[in-house]
Amino acid sequence: MKKPFVTLQQLEELSKSFPTPYHLYDERAIRENARKLKQAFSWNPGFREYFAVKATPNPTLMTILHEEGCGMDCSSLTELMLCDRVGIRGEEIMFSSNDTPAEDFHLCAKLGGTINLDDITHIEFLERTIGALPKRMSCRYNPGGNFEISNMIMDTPGEAKYGLTKPQMFQAFRILRDKGVTEFGIHAFLASNTTTNDYYPTLAMQLFRLAVELHAELGVHIGFINLSGGVGIPYRPDQQSADILQIGEGVRKVYNQILVPAGMGDVAIYTELGRFMLGPYGCLVTRCIHQKHTYKNYVGVDACACNLMRPAMYGAYHHITVMGKENLPCDHLYDVTGGLCENNDKFAIDRWLPQVDIGDFLVIHDTGAHGHSMGYNYNGKLRSAEVLLCEDGTAKLIRRAETPEDYFATLDF
Amino acid sequence: MKKPFVTLQQLEELSKSFPTPYHLYDERAIRENARKLKQAFSWNPGFREYFAVKATPNPTLMTILHEEGCGMDCSSLTELMLCDRVGIRGEEIMFSSNDTPAEDFHLCAKLGGTINLDDITHIEFLERTIGALPKRMSCRYNPGGNFEISNMIMDTPGEAKYGLTKPQMFQAFRILRDKGVTEFGIHAFLASNTTTNDYYPTLAMQLFRLAVELHAELGVHIGFINLSGGVGIPYRPDQQSADILQIGEGVRKVYNQILVPAGMGDVAIYTELGRFMLGPYGCLVTRCIHQKHTYKNYVGVDACACNLMRPAMYGAYHHITVMGKENLPCDHLYDVTGGLCENNDKFAIDRWLPQVDIGDFLVIHDTGAHGHSMGYNYNGKLRSAEVLLCEDGTAKLIRRAETPEDYFATLDF
Repeated sequence: MKKPFVTLQQLEELSKSFPTPYHLYDERAIRENARKLKQAFSWNPGFREYFAVKATPNPTLMTILHEEGCGMDCSSLTELMLCDRVGIRGEEIMFSSNDTPAEDFHLCAKLGGTINLDDITHIEFLERTIGALPKRMSCRYNPGGNFEISNMIMDTPGEAKYGLTKPQMFQAFRILRDKGVTEFGIHAFLASNTTTNDYYPTLAMQLFRLAVELHAELGVHIGFINLSGGVGIPYRPDQQSADILQIGEGVRKVYNQILVPAGMGDVAIYTELGRFMLGPYGCLVTRCIHQKHTYKNYVGVDACACNLMRPAMYGAYHHITVMGKENLPCDHLYDVTGGLCENNDKFAIDRWLPQVDIGDFLVIHDTGAHGHSMGYNYNGKLRSAEVLLCEDGTAKLIRRAETPEDYFATLDF
Repeated sequence: MKKPFVTLQQLEELSKSFPTPYHLYDERAIRENARKLKQAFSWNPGFREYFAVKATPNPTLMTILHEEGCGMDCSSLTELMLCDRVGIRGEEIMFSSNDTPAEDFHLCAKLGGTINLDDITHIEFLERTIGALPKRMSCRYNPGGNFEISNMIMDTPGEAKYGLTKPQMFQAFRILRDKGVTEFGIHAFLASNTTTNDYYPTLAMQLFRLAVELHAELGVHIGFINLSGGVGIPYRPDQQSADILQIGEGVRKVYNQILVPAGMGDVAIYTELGRFMLGPYGCLVTRCIHQKHTYKNYVGVDACACNLMRPAMYGAYHHITVMGKENLPCDHLYDVTGGLCENNDKFAIDRWLPQVDIGDFLVIHDTGAHGHSMGYNYNGKLRSAEVLLCEDGTAKLIRRAETPEDYFATLDF
């Protein structure tokens, strides 16, 4: 069973300061998890996690992860600006974007971040944009076809807009080398939200072999290999979570098997995890405000898809706990809905829960990543606050809720 | 063929004042279309269109529609506030919301809007919230099951969270009557984005019959019947658009057949159209900034799903015109992508277009409704400006683009 990281008593206390709905994050668990990741790759001296800022672009959470040794993976101008404002610069920034506007490359270069090119044409575009290429550069690889583990198709990179083909990788590295780049990185993202322990090792094997080939053919120095994201979390209570220590061990084995014998035992391993870093350590706290019984039974809550879009956009499962009723039988079948005039605004469809009453606190689990960050303002609904449950047991507001004036800010009445 | 309402020359002129991407609206066509709708229902003295604000909550566009005689259909607090700010109040507001917070009902009552109840329990909730019930009230009906036209299933109301069952309609009207309500309305939304001329007449027949029954059994005065939205637009070039004059005529026939003989020839017909009012009269103007050739051919534009989410969320088709190349053969197969790190950020997949070059203007059609309003800030991307092409040929900014400071507004660094 999934257990919330807060108790009903805590929520009742919090509700005196923070009206629902709000996203709540668990500092202690975030730090513990970040340390575990670091431990999993401690065999690799250069290892660094670059937190995927897009998952949860909150300065306080970024600072916590930075304190735990993480850099930041940015994908846009404002994410770079966020890093700058919280004092994260230089090699602690990885810039993995696509279809990139010139101003984004400008700012990244100014901040000294490492640029991970998504396309071969970006070499010329970047050079034209920022004058000269940085000495340290990365390219994103896309092997095409399907990505399989033990003959199971995990994802379809060939359908994805990202990255360079294998011939383009060789061509790009040659061009970059000839233009004076001295340190190279390889990046790939081939499957999303996996919970198998085999994803990173399987990916690493592909990338390590490519690195050896690139090194052998072009004589380039591969400084780092970026396994990117893809290690996910179990959203469903019956799913097993990935074991990050085993994953780290799996990558180490492949590293020793492929890179070390090629004299490339100095390659740093990078990751760009988002969901894995924060997903389970955030939840959406909401209350039941209406009950409706028509052709189905509806629990209406004070949050909506504007606070959490994953169920509406992807049909994603998010576990729900009715607080204080954890030990009651789940003998009521509900749709749990928000108030959008949009029939996909349902946090759960046909979900067995204990009887819900108006005023009950509901915890929607695993919203720590791609939760608040995917919020929109459809129907004029406002995005919620973000609250941190600190290690010392206190709570603090780390993003205020939107007000109507925020919503009207771009209008001139 | 779909033809944009602007020319390349106009866009080049506009680009001096308005950097892409932006949503552009066509005032002349908006007014013409609104007049045509009014004409279609001119046989009904009480007819009023309540524009579905959620589709495009822009004060300038709301004012244009108001000038053409439209009221506003609101679904939330901020939409009510928008109406108040542009001077639309009283019976010109219809409030059709669901899972409604107390403060929304408060404001609607204060503005004198007509409240359309989504659930029978809202009677008590509303009374408790605002003290006494208004004299004029509406209830939203949901007949359950499937909604069929000529044995074709158009939609599945039984799966929708909205409205009251038939027994609940009778019960609610009885309670409301006994609590002093004197004028009643009936509302239903049973199918989305239809392009058949039969949707409104078929729906009207159901609602008219229900009105006659309610009137006969409870002696209540039915003041209006609200056909709500559902008349859509043809997004694909090979689709026929609905003929609003024929639709109006179809409703008139049913009206004369059912309501008039029942002595109910004074019932006003209301509509709550959004997409039909603005969809085709807005477009997203963007430029090609990158070209990518890997396993597929990609055209990268400076807009992304943050400016228009329908393709990403619903897989919706939006026609694309490459400006200045309208007469060239469509002999290139492209994915047209934005820059989100999210593989569903594609405005088109496998679309035949003329050869696209960097710098080309692309017009993405039919974004006048549920376009800007569904924008989000994923990946820290900013929502675009809205520009009105005025009747006199000039252009004016009717919503500025977001800036990074807007994006950071809820943060305290």
